[in-house]
Amino acid sequence: MKVAIIMGSDSDLPVLQPALDTLKEFGVAIEVLVASAHRTPDKVHHFTAGAAERGVQAIIAAAGAAAHLPGVVASYTTLPVIGVPVNSTSVGGLDALLSIVQMPAGIPVATMAINGAKNAALFAVQILATANRELALRLVEYRTAMAAEVDRKNAALQEKLAGQAK
Amino acid sequence: MKVAIIMGSDSDLPVLQPALDTLKEFGVAIEVLVASAHRTPDKVHHFTAGAAERGVQAIIAAAGAAAHLPGVVASYTTLPVIGVPVNSTSVGGLDALLSIVQMPAGIPVATMAINGAKNAALFAVQILATANRELALRLVEYRTAMAAEVDRKNAALQEKLAGQAK
Amino acid sequence: MKVAIIMGSDSDLPVLQPALDTLKEFGVAIEVLVASAHRTPDKVHHFTAGAAERGVQAIIAAAGAAAHLPGVVASYTTLPVIGVPVNSTSVGGLDALLSIVQMPAGIPVATMAINGAKNAALFAVQILATANRELALRLVEYRTAMAAEVDRKNAALQEKLAGQAK
Amino acid sequence: MKVAIIMGSDSDLPVLQPALDTLKEFGVAIEVLVASAHRTPDKVHHFTAGAAERGVQAIIAAAGAAAHLPGVVASYTTLPVIGVPVNSTSVGGLDALLSIVQMPAGIPVATMAINGAKNAALFAVQILATANRELALRLVEYRTAMAAEVDRKNAALQEKLAGQAK
Amino acid sequence: MKVAIIMGSDSDLPVLQPALDTLKEFGVAIEVLVASAHRTPDKVHHFTAGAAERGVQAIIAAAGAAAHLPGVVASYTTLPVIGVPVNSTSVGGLDALLSIVQMPAGIPVATMAINGAKNAALFAVQILATANRELALRLVEYRTAMAAEVDRKNAALQEKLAGQAK
Amino acid sequence: MKVAIIMGSDSDLPVLQPALDTLKEFGVAIEVLVASAHRTPDKVHHFTAGAAERGVQAIIAAAGAAAHLPGVVASYTTLPVIGVPVNSTSVGGLDALLSIVQMPAGIPVATMAINGAKNAALFAVQILATANRELALRLVEYRTAMAAEVDRKNAALQEKLAGQAK
Amino acid sequence: MKVAIIMGSDSDLPVLQPALDTLKEFGVAIEVLVASAHRTPDKVHHFTAGAAERGVQAIIAAAGAAAHLPGVVASYTTLPVIGVPVNSTSVGGLDALLSIVQMPAGIPVATMAINGAKNAALFAVQILATANRELALRLVEYRTAMAAEVDRKNAALQEKLAGQAK
Amino acid sequence: MKVAIIMGSDSDLPVLQPALDTLKEFGVAIEVLVASAHRTPDKVHHFTAGAAERGVQAIIAAAGAAAHLPGVVASYTTLPVIGVPVNSTSVGGLDALLSIVQMPAGIPVATMAINGAKNAALFAVQILATANRELALRLVEYRTAMAAEVDRKNAALQEKLAGQAK
Repeated sequence: MKVAIIMGSDSDLPVLQPALDTLKEFGVAIEVLVASAHRTPDKVHHFTAGAAERGVQAIIAAAGAAAHLPGVVASYTTLPVIGVPVNSTSVGGLDALLSIVQMPAGIPVATMAINGAKNAALFAVQILATANRELALRLVEYRTAMAAEVDRKNAALQEKLAGQAK
Repeated sequence: MKVAIIMGSDSDLPVLQPALDTLKEFGVAIEVLVASAHRTPDKVHHFTAGAAERGVQAIIAAAGAAAHLPGVVASYTTLPVIGVPVNSTSVGGLDALLSIVQMPAGIPVATMAINGAKNAALFAVQILATANRELALRLVEYRTAMAAEVDRKNAALQEKLAGQAK
Repeated sequence: MKVAIIMGSDSDLPVLQPALDTLKEFGVAIEVLVASAHRTPDKVHHFTAGAAERGVQAIIAAAGAAAHLPGVVASYTTLPVIGVPVNSTSVGGLDALLSIVQMPAGIPVATMAINGAKNAALFAVQILATANRELALRLVEYRTAMAAEVDRKNAALQEKLAGQAK
Repeated sequence: MKVAIIMGSDSDLPVLQPALDTLKEFGVAIEVLVASAHRTPDKVHHFTAGAAERGVQAIIAAAGAAAHLPGVVASYTTLPVIGVPVNSTSVGGLDALLSIVQMPAGIPVATMAINGAKNAALFAVQILATANRELALRLVEYRTAMAAEVDRKNAALQEKLAGQAK
Repeated sequence: MKVAIIMGSDSDLPVLQPALDTLKEFGVAIEVLVASAHRTPDKVHHFTAGAAERGVQAIIAAAGAAAHLPGVVASYTTLPVIGVPVNSTSVGGLDALLSIVQMPAGIPVATMAINGAKNAALFAVQILATANRELALRLVEYRTAMAAEVDRKNAALQEKLAGQAK
Repeated sequence: MKVAIIMGSDSDLPVLQPALDTLKEFGVAIEVLVASAHRTPDKVHHFTAGAAERGVQAIIAAAGAAAHLPGVVASYTTLPVIGVPVNSTSVGGLDALLSIVQMPAGIPVATMAINGAKNAALFAVQILATANRELALRLVEYRTAMAAEVDRKNAALQEKLAGQAK
Repeated sequence: MKVAIIMGSDSDLPVLQPALDTLKEFGVAIEVLVASAHRTPDKVHHFTAGAAERGVQAIIAAAGAAAHLPGVVASYTTLPVIGVPVNSTSVGGLDALLSIVQMPAGIPVATMAINGAKNAALFAVQILATANRELALRLVEYRTAMAAEVDRKNAALQEKLAGQAK
Repeated sequence: MKVAIIMGSDSDLPVLQPALDTLKEFGVAIEVLVASAHRTPDKVHHFTAGAAERGVQAIIAAAGAAAHLPGVVASYTTLPVIGVPVNSTSVGGLDALLSIVQMPAGIPVATMAINGAKNAALFAVQILATANRELALRLVEYRTAMAAEVDRKNAALQEKLAGQAK
């Protein structure tokens, strides 16, 4: 049970940290690589082409600007590739979003929200869970915990507003 | 090995037909549902909540405009949900794209290109293939066939240009 | 005379505070709920479906990013739903605006400006005032006060510029 | 029970026809006016300022391009004003949408989808229904009929796909 | 020789200050008004309708968001109206720009850059100069001074770079 | 009383025809030039620099795509320059609009709506009318005629709807 | 003197034909390849990596949607790469433009207008001309011919307008 | 071996500094000019028209807002012109990008990313290297160094993550 994370630059690490944390939380092994689709294309090629053999079951790729990394990764593997557009330029991440999501027919990239690294990890877990009942149960628990957290926030707000109303 | 396809309106069928065709091509069973996140929310709820029990392993949801269907589907299941933004208004599908891709942390939707139904099906197959070696091999063959098709087109163009040059 | 306010996250409270203040100013009772269309869909369903019976006459729903909350709320009630797009991502609230305003035919959401919570409250009051002459009169007074405020600002500017001209 | 519809140009009538039809379907009386915020501002002023006295309870205003009509109407009345952005230029109605929805604090306009005239009418009915139990019941029936229509389309699609599978 | 400046809110004054300064620099008399197209429409109407009689020869109107003020001003006068879109929301002034520039045929508004108040003043002077030879000469001098300023900056940069090269 | 019209390409003539017609309607003499800011920069320079001496009082410049023509014209004259963004590419004229309206401080271009040639002519007439009382009166008449036309359309619509109601 | 043209799909040929024609007009030899950054990445790699050795001096790469081809080509060569965004989706080519132009520091792609294939060829010629005086002279002649063509169109328009004026 | 850099304002120097540094790093001589397409058009004209004679082989032109400078420069020379859109307004540099990249057929400008000055310099070097084998070799070395830098960052990240895992 292993997921690879490729980022175009180490400056993307803060954006990707929630993905690392979430995968660890679910007990998923992680391979991380800093590699650039444009500066180190061969590194990307070799890392990706050998991923399945190393036991990787899904790849998360994050990049900003003309964000080619997820698509380039997808061109070298049939593993599911999850793309995270990084907001790194003056146009709010729209360049990265369009560069990742508008893939041509034949080579899909599962695109997450701009800077949506946590969801990339959760989606990777959901993929693994399609063949792992225990993981599927933990996802249900995770959802229950999220809902409880929303309820706690609601309760706190009710209390606060009740206090104001007095 | 089953994938569900939910569309917000039967008018989305032409956009989704390539997804149906591709899943059939890979021998994947399909459940199809026309249901609206807004007009028939309970139908969406029940279909989705029971999908895992019916053996569905991934859900493709397509919608245009304020495209809430994929996100609403994702809120009722931990199966992987693949969203297809449909170009159905005057803003070229940007409304559907942003409505689908910008999901908040916790509930991911794997977003495809605007009208990218074929890739939604291929991505569903890639998910299934993480636990199905045969399917994984067929994906590799599919890629090989795509590459051969590109080569054929290139050869045809070379011939055409050579003919013009005479 | 009661209006409900639903927000997707308690982090939206600062944006919504002007709505709470304005409704109080007009003597309208308020129900507030923190609930997420995606993390606690059942809570949203039950709160909304029972709203009319509890005497709620209009619902204000605010959300950012893929802002499905107002549309999901609208799918469970025929009360007027007023949507407030919250600017919470890198694209300036355009994602929330399009996710809320581009609702399909059949299920309207009355959309306000990005972060336009005060107007959501005023519009709710305008709805209530269609059947409440006293409230209608207070709206006219409110407008008069706003106009007087503009006139005061104009007078202050004239004075300031006259001072500079000396 | 009366709703007014103001359009900036008679060329907007095809976009607004669904609003007229829907209001008639619910038995709501209609006043219609062709008047321009810029070419006939006084006409707009007088029609709007006197609307409440004539028994109008909500006003639908539609315009394209620099769509000032709904905001100008809202500046002359405290009745609820529902704005319909019309797609009439080369930018897909985004100009009209932003011109209508981004109203400053104090003067709300309830904005519908681009060309969303049917929803404008339904929203007007929802406003009227807050003080009219019969109308509220008819809205519920309308929703039920919409849901049934979606179910019919789904059934037809299932049949069609079953036929193809044979 | 008089120009009027209308702003929707006194918070727009910092954006408009360069217009006031520039008009003073050219010796043009100024009338300033804070008035809102939506909150004080009658004030706008009366100020504008009487402007020509008071000797005003051009009107500068600035507003942000759903920036109706310049168009509303233009609907009450045949004097040249110059619109300044103010960047006052989360979408970078694009809402104000489209609300001002996309005026329908018949009622033009001369639109300047977002926050381009200085150019609004210069354009007003250019209008006055069509019938005022002295003003036309001063505009030429102004251009010459601007060019000299660019040349001075260029000379300073050359010196700086020469210093670095040593 | 003369206005010059410069277009970047003779293919822009259909867009500009309403400007020619409107200027003729007001009895304004016209100089027309097809010249390109990029292909014939010297022609643009000479035509523009000598315009004032030839009696031209305002210049209308229209261009699409990277629409530099109005700004280049403005750099060679202190006459008022009115820019018309032409919708000639796949982005709906937004490229031309931004290229024309976002002029830097010092060199204003009065920007009209995308394809708004008629308003360019009317605005030129409004400029001329600041020093020509007869023209000012004709503008008022023109407005009156426009308003009457709107009223006629309204009357026709009332009649049509009354017919339908029978 | 040789330029390579790579297109992601043979359906891009109509867009690229003006590039082929223009290069022929200047007597530049052409290599053409249909190859996909995603479907045939190895083909792109080998073609590009060997281009300099085959005497290619510049590469034109055209693609639509998530247009990675020009960037991928640029990652395998230090020859100048000229990118042509192709308008092939519902967002008017903005996806391709941003995917090509927003390249990260280190790997430039010289981006042309959307569908701007002719300029790609001219720019390739301009590059070759930096070391080829004869080609430089032909470029000057080409410009002269373009200017003459504009002048001819202007003359034709003058004649047409003179005819109308009679 | 000389490249010219023209900037519309000395405030653009910080954006352009990486271009100066990179050209120096490659031993390319530089001419710098501050000149405005609109304020000092003649200066731009003369500097550009004489550039080839002074031995300049490529010109980098940077500007923000309605960024006409690169196109205007390109209209006066057949040397390769490289445009750098500068992010200097409230719309994130999209105005400058479209003003530079959307050049009409006949006059190309090689457009770089928003604020992409370093790539402008590298692209200029790539042009020079088409006729300079030594420079070509240095470009290859530069790429190798960039790749090594990415590898170093990757190694550092691996170490950091290994440390965290203990």
